[in-house]
This record gives sequence, C-alpha cells and structure tokens, in this order.
Amino acid sequence: MKIFAYGIREDEQPSLKKWETAHPDVEVGFTDYTLTADSAHLAEGSNGVVTLQTSPYTRDALEVLHQLGIKYISIRNVGFDNFKFQDLNELDFTLTNVPVYSPNAIAEHAVILMGRLLRRVPEFDQKMDNGDFTWSPTIGKEYREQTVGVVGTGHIGRVVIQILQGFGAKVVAYDVFHNPDIEKQGLYVDSLEELYKKADIITLHVPLFDSNKHMINDDSIAQMKDGVYIINCARGELVDTDALIKGLDSGKIAGAGLDVLDDENSVFGKVWSSRENIPNEKIRNLAKRLNVIITPHSAFYTETAIHNMITTSFDSNLALIEGEKPQNIVDTNK
Amino acid sequence: MKIFAYGIREDEQPSLKKWETAHPDVEVGFTDYTLTADSAHLAEGSNGVVTLQTSPYTRDALEVLHQLGIKYISIRNVGFDNFKFQDLNELDFTLTNVPVYSPNAIAEHAVILMGRLLRRVPEFDQKMDNGDFTWSPTIGKEYREQTVGVVGTGHIGRVVIQILQGFGAKVVAYDVFHNPDIEKQGLYVDSLEELYKKADIITLHVPLFDSNKHMINDDSIAQMKDGVYIINCARGELVDTDALIKGLDSGKIAGAGLDVLDDENSVFGKVWSSRENIPNEKIRNLAKRLNVIITPHSAFYTETAIHNMITTSFDSNLALIEGEKPQNIVDTNK
Repeated sequence: MKIFAYGIREDEQPSLKKWETAHPDVEVGFTDYTLTADSAHLAEGSNGVVTLQTSPYTRDALEVLHQLGIKYISIRNVGFDNFKFQDLNELDFTLTNVPVYSPNAIAEHAVILMGRLLRRVPEFDQKMDNGDFTWSPTIGKEYREQTVGVVGTGHIGRVVIQILQGFGAKVVAYDVFHNPDIEKQGLYVDSLEELYKKADIITLHVPLFDSNKHMINDDSIAQMKDGVYIINCARGELVDTDALIKGLDSGKIAGAGLDVLDDENSVFGKVWSSRENIPNEKIRNLAKRLNVIITPHSAFYTETAIHNMITTSFDSNLALIEGEKPQNIVDTNK
Repeated sequence: MKIFAYGIREDEQPSLKKWETAHPDVEVGFTDYTLTADSAHLAEGSNGVVTLQTSPYTRDALEVLHQLGIKYISIRNVGFDNFKFQDLNELDFTLTNVPVYSPNAIAEHAVILMGRLLRRVPEFDQKMDNGDFTWSPTIGKEYREQTVGVVGTGHIGRVVIQILQGFGAKVVAYDVFHNPDIEKQGLYVDSLEELYKKADIITLHVPLFDSNKHMINDDSIAQMKDGVYIINCARGELVDTDALIKGLDSGKIAGAGLDVLDDENSVFGKVWSSRENIPNEKIRNLAKRLNVIITPHSAFYTETAIHNMITTSFDSNLALIEGEKPQNIVDTNK
C-alpha cells in the first residue's frame, strides 16, 4: 500500500514521519508541490493521495490521478470549495476532509487576542521600542471584569467559554442551536441584540452563511456598548470592514483582534515590503492602529493542529484504501 | 476630617473622585508630587496622608508631617521598605499598606505572557512589521498541551492555577505552605526538583527571601526540561540573569516572560532613546531577543488594581483617623 502526499511543509514532516513509523505496512511518499496537472504523476503507484492547498484542484490534475488508478483523496483541512464536485463524481473519487483538528488552537488564540487588547500590548511594545520603560498611563483591564459575548457555541465557541470561565469572566452566548451544557449553565441570551447590549467583548465563532455575511455592520455596532472589543477568528466576511473602521474612528469600538479579514486573500499569505505597504487600503488602515491586532489567519496554526491534520487525513486515506467508510467522507452529491 | 494624598497619577483620579463622592464628610486633597521635605507642608490641616512612591520617605519629610500633627500614613501599595521604621516609631506614626490589591491583575498578565510566547507573538509581530503576512513556519503551541509548574500558591499562584485549568493545561505546584484546596486537587509535588523535571513552563509567584534569591540559576536550570519557558512576574532577584541568558543561548530555555528583572530599577520607569540604548547590558541582551518578552513591572497595572489601591488606602486612613484599628496596620516594631 502506498499513500502520496502533496504540499507537505517542513513543519508537517515530524508528524508525517511519526505516522509513517506507526504504519510500517504503508509506504509514504510526499512532495512540497501542490497537486496540479504537472505534479499529479508523482503519485504513480499510490493507492491514495493526501493533499492541502488553497488553489483550485483542476480537472486536468484529477484526470491524471484517475489515469493512475487512484480513487481516494484525503484533504488535510476542513474546506473543499476548491474542488468541483462534478469532477470528483465523474472521475469516481471518494473525498475525505478533517472536520475538526484543534478547536483549542483557535479558541486559545481568540482569548490571547483579548488579553493583548485588554493589556494594551501593542502600545507597550511601541513604548519599549522607543525606549520608554514606564507603565503609566498605559493602564490595562482584567478579563475577570469583562462580560464576553460568544457568538456560536460549536466546538470552538465552547472551548472559548471554558477558558474565559477559568479567568472568572462573565459569559453570555448566542447560537441558533443550543448546546445542552451551555444551556444548563444558563449562558444563552435570546437574541444577538441582547448579546450586543451586554457584552464588553464580542467574539465570533460561527461558520459563514449568506445570512450572516457582514453581521457586524453599522446597525449591529450601534447596538453594542461604547468601548466594545471585537474578536474575529472565524471568517473575514462576517465583519463589514468599513463599519469596523468607522466604529474604531468614533471610539465606539475600543479595539479589535482579527485573525481573518474580508478580502484577506489580497494580503495574507504573501510578503510585502512593509506593514504600511500592503495593497489593500482597508487592511492597511487597520494594520497601523495600536488598538487593532491582526494575525494572518494563523489562529489554527499549532503543533497539535498540524499533528491532527496529518494523522486524521492519513488515517482516513488508509481506511478508504482498506475498503472502510470513515465518518469524514465528504458528500459530493449535495 | 481631611485626608491628603501624594503622588496621585491621572489614572488614579477617577477612583479617587469616586471615593470622595462616597465620603462627603471627608475632605480630600491631593498632589502629583511625591512626599518630600519640600512637599510635606501641602498636607497642612489634614488628619492623615495617603502616599505611593519608590523613592525613600525621608526623616525630614516625616518630621514636617509630625509638626503638622499628622499621625496616620497609608501607602497605596504593599511594600514599605522605603520607610525607616525607627523614624516612624520615634515620630509616632501609624502605617497601613494595601497587602492585596488584585492578584488577578498579576495572574492574568503571567498567563498572557505564556500565551504570547507559546504563539510566538514577537516573531509574528516582526514578520508583519516587515510586511510578511505568512503564518508558516511560525508554528505555535497550545496551553492545553503544557504542564505548567506554579511556584508559590498564595493569592496570585492560585488564580494562575485556576486560569490554566480553564485552558485545560496540566498544573504541578510547589509551596512550603500547602493550600488545602490545591492539596485536595493533588497538584503539589514534593520538591522544586520534581517541579523542574515535570514542567514545560515554570511561573514564579513567591515573595523574595534571602533563601530564594537567584533560585533560578545554573543548577536549577540544569534540572529543567529542554525547551522550558520561564515566567517571572514576582521579583527580579528570584532569577540569576546570567544563568537565564546562558540557558537562552544554549536553547535549554525556549523563552522567557519577565515583568521583573534583577537590577530593574536601573532601566524600568525611565525613558531611554530606544530599546537598544538602555544602560544595562544584561537587560539589553534580553530585550533584543524574539523569545523574551519584557514588560516594565506593569503586571499589577489594571483599572481594578488601581481602584483597589485607592479605595483600601483611603478606607484604612479614614479608619485610623476615626480611632479604629484596620487589619492592614504595618507592624513597625519588627
């Protein structure tokens, strides 16, 4: 049996080697190339492929794999919108993803962003870069004094709540689907409006739908407390960047921690000449503010998450090869 | 009745005004001057003074207060080593301090420092300042995968433990005095050696004694895990800076979060021309490392802490004036 993996980064190799060692009956090959029509032949002799990329999986590439007799594709991430399901079905591929790799990675990142804002870390960093080793007047706030509004109580939102409770913060939560444990704790409010009214910090942990695109906009910001903090480690399109900038300008919003941004692909994942020289005016506007912290969609990026992405994708691919039906098969008939 | 306060900063004024409003029978005066022989006369007509400074309280200044008939001094902080007890006793002063103002301020700061190190925030900041908006290869670690060794389980250490448990981290603790709750949870190890052997992160929350000066030294570092992180938000003299630098150089220590430093008074609280131009070679050495985060003794500095420092010191001063004996009278006969 052989599995071939595409787009393997250096930080993934320790986990890949570990999986290989644990499966002496499986031959593992890999490349740092993404899966394209040019690189697809590298999988020759393999029973399945494991892959991760943000660029489209082209019909040409899939046809080469098909000609090599490969039927199983396992992606190392959640999202599969860079596949055309029609291609997969016509070429008889079965696809698996990794639906959950580490809710904690993202939850912890969101809570750290809150702390960096509450303790005014960018201002302290700037002071110290300028040789200013005084603390006054850069006074901070404590988590335990905050009411945090958690929007979305799925895997990630629930970990956020647990962490915040350790800090002694007050939590209010909103979700269309009520989790029994969060319900039992009495944390749900009945509407987003109520959450906006009560929260000192609002943190988003919902998937993106047509219905919640730009849910953080002029109207919803108007409903929030003066001096609110907004954290987005979910999807950039949840926040209307113009409204966010307006709120920051007026002081209505005290700060923001953003791991994702509307139109982030024009900036993230690339190297520009400086923070000020990024080619997106709105992101540039945000990036220069001392009360805004941007991270380049890196919330997920921990050793644990990478380990789980590798392990789950290889496990699933092997299961498919052995004729099993893992739970994380993507339904390509939708 | 009148209370006069010295060294009042702008960030203290909201809490001071609040206290004044709540005590209409007490006249409150204040100055931003520290208490010196020159400024002492400002307290004329007052029954007590409230003060906070790091410079010495001189005999001359105390003699002026004595001549004004003032008997009660309430400091807004914990430490009173800038008083000579002999002066206080000979001039018939009663002194109060604020033994605990916000354990959470310091505990939260220590845990945020851990998160900033685990997620390699200084490296990400530098990348983004250079226009690099990629996440790879700056991979982070998660709190929940760490074993944290908490040295000292007083007010602050216990809050640290509670926060870390919210993150799902494993905690081992050491203290000469066992707190019943921490004991019941089975978190204590029998020796510092055992804690050093088990901990991925070591955080100090003990007072400074002659016996623990430079407790983090070449010998103790040798007992630690490779790649350990060290957090010090307690007292600078607990850590031998030479040994810390040696450990960072060798890679034995993966990073450090330092709110206090041996000989910090030569640098902290002052404004230099740049981070690189500070007049202490060892602190300069630490300050330029991307895996070391220095904060200028600011862990305590939150709105809640400042509010409690003002409220407790004024409450105590008023109690003394009214002939009561508050619990936080400093025993100057030791």
